[in-house]
Amino acid sequence: MRIQVINPNTSDAMTHKIGLAAQAIARPGTQIIACSPEDGPVSIEGHFDEAIATLGVLEEVRKGREQQVDAHIIACFGDPGLLAAREYATAPVIGIAEAAFHMAALIATRFAVVTTLSRTRIIAEHLLQRYGFSELCTSVRCIDLPVLALEEGGPELIERMIDQARRARDEEGAGAIVLGCGGMADLPRQLSEAIGLPVVEGVSAAVKLAESLVDLGLTTSKHGDLADPIGKPFKGRFAYLSR
Amino acid sequence: MRIQVINPNTSDAMTHKIGLAAQAIARPGTQIIACSPEDGPVSIEGHFDEAIATLGVLEEVRKGREQQVDAHIIACFGDPGLLAAREYATAPVIGIAEAAFHMAALIATRFAVVTTLSRTRIIAEHLLQRYGFSELCTSVRCIDLPVLALEEGGPELIERMIDQARRARDEEGAGAIVLGCGGMADLPRQLSEAIGLPVVEGVSAAVKLAESLVDLGLTTSKHGDLADPIGKPFKGRFAYLSR
Amino acid sequence: MRIQVINPNTSDAMTHKIGLAAQAIARPGTQIIACSPEDGPVSIEGHFDEAIATLGVLEEVRKGREQQVDAHIIACFGDPGLLAAREYATAPVIGIAEAAFHMAALIATRFAVVTTLSRTRIIAEHLLQRYGFSELCTSVRCIDLPVLALEEGGPELIERMIDQARRARDEEGAGAIVLGCGGMADLPRQLSEAIGLPVVEGVSAAVKLAESLVDLGLTTSKHGDLADPIGKPFKGRFAYLSR
Amino acid sequence: MRIQVINPNTSDAMTHKIGLAAQAIARPGTQIIACSPEDGPVSIEGHFDEAIATLGVLEEVRKGREQQVDAHIIACFGDPGLLAAREYATAPVIGIAEAAFHMAALIATRFAVVTTLSRTRIIAEHLLQRYGFSELCTSVRCIDLPVLALEEGGPELIERMIDQARRARDEEGAGAIVLGCGGMADLPRQLSEAIGLPVVEGVSAAVKLAESLVDLGLTTSKHGDLADPIGKPFKGRFAYLSR
Amino acid sequence: MRIQVINPNTSDAMTHKIGLAAQAIARPGTQIIACSPEDGPVSIEGHFDEAIATLGVLEEVRKGREQQVDAHIIACFGDPGLLAAREYATAPVIGIAEAAFHMAALIATRFAVVTTLSRTRIIAEHLLQRYGFSELCTSVRCIDLPVLALEEGGPELIERMIDQARRARDEEGAGAIVLGCGGMADLPRQLSEAIGLPVVEGVSAAVKLAESLVDLGLTTSKHGDLADPIGKPFKGRFAYLSR
Amino acid sequence: MRIQVINPNTSDAMTHKIGLAAQAIARPGTQIIACSPEDGPVSIEGHFDEAIATLGVLEEVRKGREQQVDAHIIACFGDPGLLAAREYATAPVIGIAEAAFHMAALIATRFAVVTTLSRTRIIAEHLLQRYGFSELCTSVRCIDLPVLALEEGGPELIERMIDQARRARDEEGAGAIVLGCGGMADLPRQLSEAIGLPVVEGVSAAVKLAESLVDLGLTTSKHGDLADPIGKPFKGRFAYLSR
Repeated sequence: MRIQVINPNTSDAMTHKIGLAAQAIARPGTQIIACSPEDGPVSIEGHFDEAIATLGVLEEVRKGREQQVDAHIIACFGDPGLLAAREYATAPVIGIAEAAFHMAALIATRFAVVTTLSRTRIIAEHLLQRYGFSELCTSVRCIDLPVLALEEGGPELIERMIDQARRARDEEGAGAIVLGCGGMADLPRQLSEAIGLPVVEGVSAAVKLAESLVDLGLTTSKHGDLADPIGKPFKGRFAYLSR
Repeated sequence: MRIQVINPNTSDAMTHKIGLAAQAIARPGTQIIACSPEDGPVSIEGHFDEAIATLGVLEEVRKGREQQVDAHIIACFGDPGLLAAREYATAPVIGIAEAAFHMAALIATRFAVVTTLSRTRIIAEHLLQRYGFSELCTSVRCIDLPVLALEEGGPELIERMIDQARRARDEEGAGAIVLGCGGMADLPRQLSEAIGLPVVEGVSAAVKLAESLVDLGLTTSKHGDLADPIGKPFKGRFAYLSR
Repeated sequence: MRIQVINPNTSDAMTHKIGLAAQAIARPGTQIIACSPEDGPVSIEGHFDEAIATLGVLEEVRKGREQQVDAHIIACFGDPGLLAAREYATAPVIGIAEAAFHMAALIATRFAVVTTLSRTRIIAEHLLQRYGFSELCTSVRCIDLPVLALEEGGPELIERMIDQARRARDEEGAGAIVLGCGGMADLPRQLSEAIGLPVVEGVSAAVKLAESLVDLGLTTSKHGDLADPIGKPFKGRFAYLSR
Repeated sequence: MRIQVINPNTSDAMTHKIGLAAQAIARPGTQIIACSPEDGPVSIEGHFDEAIATLGVLEEVRKGREQQVDAHIIACFGDPGLLAAREYATAPVIGIAEAAFHMAALIATRFAVVTTLSRTRIIAEHLLQRYGFSELCTSVRCIDLPVLALEEGGPELIERMIDQARRARDEEGAGAIVLGCGGMADLPRQLSEAIGLPVVEGVSAAVKLAESLVDLGLTTSKHGDLADPIGKPFKGRFAYLSR
Repeated sequence: MRIQVINPNTSDAMTHKIGLAAQAIARPGTQIIACSPEDGPVSIEGHFDEAIATLGVLEEVRKGREQQVDAHIIACFGDPGLLAAREYATAPVIGIAEAAFHMAALIATRFAVVTTLSRTRIIAEHLLQRYGFSELCTSVRCIDLPVLALEEGGPELIERMIDQARRARDEEGAGAIVLGCGGMADLPRQLSEAIGLPVVEGVSAAVKLAESLVDLGLTTSKHGDLADPIGKPFKGRFAYLSR
Repeated sequence: MRIQVINPNTSDAMTHKIGLAAQAIARPGTQIIACSPEDGPVSIEGHFDEAIATLGVLEEVRKGREQQVDAHIIACFGDPGLLAAREYATAPVIGIAEAAFHMAALIATRFAVVTTLSRTRIIAEHLLQRYGFSELCTSVRCIDLPVLALEEGGPELIERMIDQARRARDEEGAGAIVLGCGGMADLPRQLSEAIGLPVVEGVSAAVKLAESLVDLGLTTSKHGDLADPIGKPFKGRFAYLSR
């Protein structure tokens, strides 16, 4: 089984980290193909970055489709381009935010999200609403460090995360923590030990869900809104998409 | 890995069928332990049956815990006793209704449920509400055949299911079908071919989610409402539960 | 009129207290039959306790049905076994949580719940959601004393309740307080005087609603999901339920 | 105990009918004071009628308050002026729509409303939303006969109601029917017998809830938004309301 | 174009202020007709005041209709009588609360409301729910100064508003502030400068929406629940409304 | 005042039609700058088309910003790139779907959407949910003609629209119709006359809302999630976006 893990931003260090996290959890026989777009922002910290990164995600999906991967993972917590990718791909597509929410819902009645910047909270809130998890999530909490600061790590990072997670646990009754950034893929154990709650990380969750769908022989419904894109002319630099 | 699959009713034929379905999808190395309570109803077709069956589920969870299974599955579409089992178990516990809903949400923007009796529709609707999937589910549709009639199969069964699934697809825009009964574990392929939609069956979905949680090292949050039951005296025939 | 008040736990002192509270509010001519199961936990402090206690509740409902009582009350704030009991009984069945919520909604636009343990908050939240009262309830607040500590009473108990109720009033705008435990049946007056809000206690509320339904000639709808349980074989120690 | 039943419209025949229905269900010792405003529309069939009728309701509440009644009932299905009346009264105030919804929720998991005109459906839907019952109500169905046509009765009236109720039962799974007009107070038995579902009528439901609140010593919370109106000058013909 | 701006209370100073605010924002060629009822409360600070004021609003709508104004604005934040006025008028009718909510939704993903008295918070919350904006509004915050204190202004007023708005911004992530009282029509600039957020004031927002509807040739749907009131007899002092 | 109207697809005929519709409703003194991307699909009929078109929208926003337009309108019913554009622009940005919903909510208590293809219904439903209008919209109805078929017009087009609108009116009680495609900008009058309901068209609605925001001095909140995009490197063909 081959699973393509797409880091939607263009930071190679993060792609590397995400790929390691994915491979570490993949079962023997599952090959992880970590990649990231050639074009786009080095980090995704808002709606604008996400919109631009979506183009790169779809390009990577196209490559993955040509390579006949068995599943695609979109490894940014906003699940950028998820529904477009489901139209475009033939194999199943999973976003790491949805993956983490689904897993958290299986182990706790209430969970909280700990993410990077306050300005991206709305992105998580919109996803929670669209996926149906608004009632299950006690809050989306932000450490207010930029995405790329996760690369540097350091004690301040984990301390801020512990602080937010602890408040979610003690003030809001959260029973599990969802990590709200693909760049946090190396942090769940440390956080879990510090606060005594299970911590769900989206990249690893998505790998397991991808394997599961493949095993089940389930893929995106091609009846209705997720059917292949309707063939039509595209103009300009997207002319190559015309069908 | 050993996964206990609990058929909450006391019909051995259904336990056998569920066990086969679980084993068929389990990956090599996963052992399925299919079981059912010694005490309880032969089928679960309402709140009352479900309440009685819950005791049997918890008894089986206790046995599974003693056998140190890696995960428990509750293989009745009402997920009877799910939260109680999560308190009582140390390993993760998954209900087949929630499992099917989660998987369906990954492959379609809208899905429908096809279940047995109209009188059990409310059970599915309450679960959809509690889990957060009300908006994603276009309707819970009933074929109005009793649970044990599934054993006999026959053309009428599958025809009724196809009829309901087709209406969900054409009238409501459902992109996937969730099978609403553990006793339908052998039907997804036939239904899927007939209507051209992916069909999600809960037992197999739950097996994959159980394997996933074990791989991820995630289990029920033991902080808060799902912590081990508070030790206390039980009276009468439940005295053995005292701690 | 004879109303059966079922204390779902097996604590005789609490059954006695609940019976007194019920009789005190019953109108002349209403006979209260307070009872509790022979088998089950001495207190209900989680999903597991509730699942076991449900069996006792249904046994008591059966006895009450044989005694041809006019209504049944389930006197634990989680309303354990409510829908199963409605199937099983011919007379109306009322849970004290729902009773208290309904009454509170008639006297305030927003109310808060003050209950015992934090770990049971989720039970109240699930009921509020299922019954439709989530928006009307500002919060479910916990004093974090075990259920049986209510028997001892003492100044700490009422002080903690006053503290939580006051915060609901001042910080959230709650106009009424719902007591979230059958064992608080003797506390409404004291709390109400301390905080200047009406305090709704579920046992007394349920008695009045039971009298009301009987007067109105209304009982559980026997068309659909609350119809009598479908007759079927039960195995093992539940064989006596076979029909 | 004295309960004031206010018919918000100025149709004496309807006031009489409502008064009879209220007295018939009131327990011995409860005196029903049926009344209607001197000023206002003869029927309430929209937002405008309701707005005008609200003044009359408040005038009647004032009279009832001076007579020191124990409770007020607003006997029009839109519950016109309910929150204003709760501010203005010292005794509890109950609307017949809310009363019927609360009672229906105790005997069925899903109910439908059968009311008069399509144009008033939105009024019922807004109330269902505000009170929290939107999910419990399968639909608000209209017979499209004007309110005063209820006075004439006749076979067409009941046939239309039976038709709508039957469709709610068979197509939507409604387990109980709520009558959506004060002028239907004499119809529940006939409808219930025809369709085999319990039928909840708001006037009688409100009488029992009023008696219940009085017995419980509960009245409108006077802390917060339902406290007595803030004293202030009123101008013109409302100058008499100045305080 | 002539737009009638109805101040629902009978305070001439507030009518004057509202009229000035409306005229200031109206485009050249739009004539503002500011008015207020002859009969009713000098301020609206609860459900009761609102119910009485609604009569005056409808009277003013009638006058405006006779003057053939092009649109009516109800300039009190509770939008009193809005749906009744829509039935009664032929031109479009806009409430200042809805106007402000709609505009705020166009410039921020989350907004907060800053209003006068805590007891009126529920009115705003009910409107947010009915209009669909509950999720977009982070909170309704109160400065707990009476409506008429707005006339006096003074540093305490604006300081309290700044304090509440700042907390909404910093603690809840509100991106815009809605002023929750018609009497605040002169305050948006000052508040906006102090906190660095856009501030939406309902009177001016309503004027622009009224102009917009007129330009678009859109007016209240006269099919269904907002059609002209059904002609019928009115009794007593409302006999003049009979048709 | 200069308003940029961006047709997100690359069909010049549609850009022309949209530009005409916008100019027709703009007030004297408002200049409409109709444009469309150089790169992208000729029509937008799904998530994939929308994702690609978003880049073109943002490119056009950039041009508009450089031209210092006073407002931007995104003239495709899925509001593609709306939040990204709000970050990226300094002037207000309005989508035609949100514009139409807001206007419809001012003239009817319930509205329906009539759009082109069934597969795009989910896009409208997601927007309704995110904006808060789910309860106000009775259904999203599809004529199942492709977007570009709107150019050809013909009797079948309008007949299908009339058929869907009539069913929304008669079966669901919709009081207004929202046209669900920018390419329908020339159809409202014809449809409105045929069915007797107000018909809201998004391009014209958006122009009036844009003028309104500019008049009010309101623009996108630049505090929080809609603040200017955080400066960062972009790679590859998006390097020009680096800051």
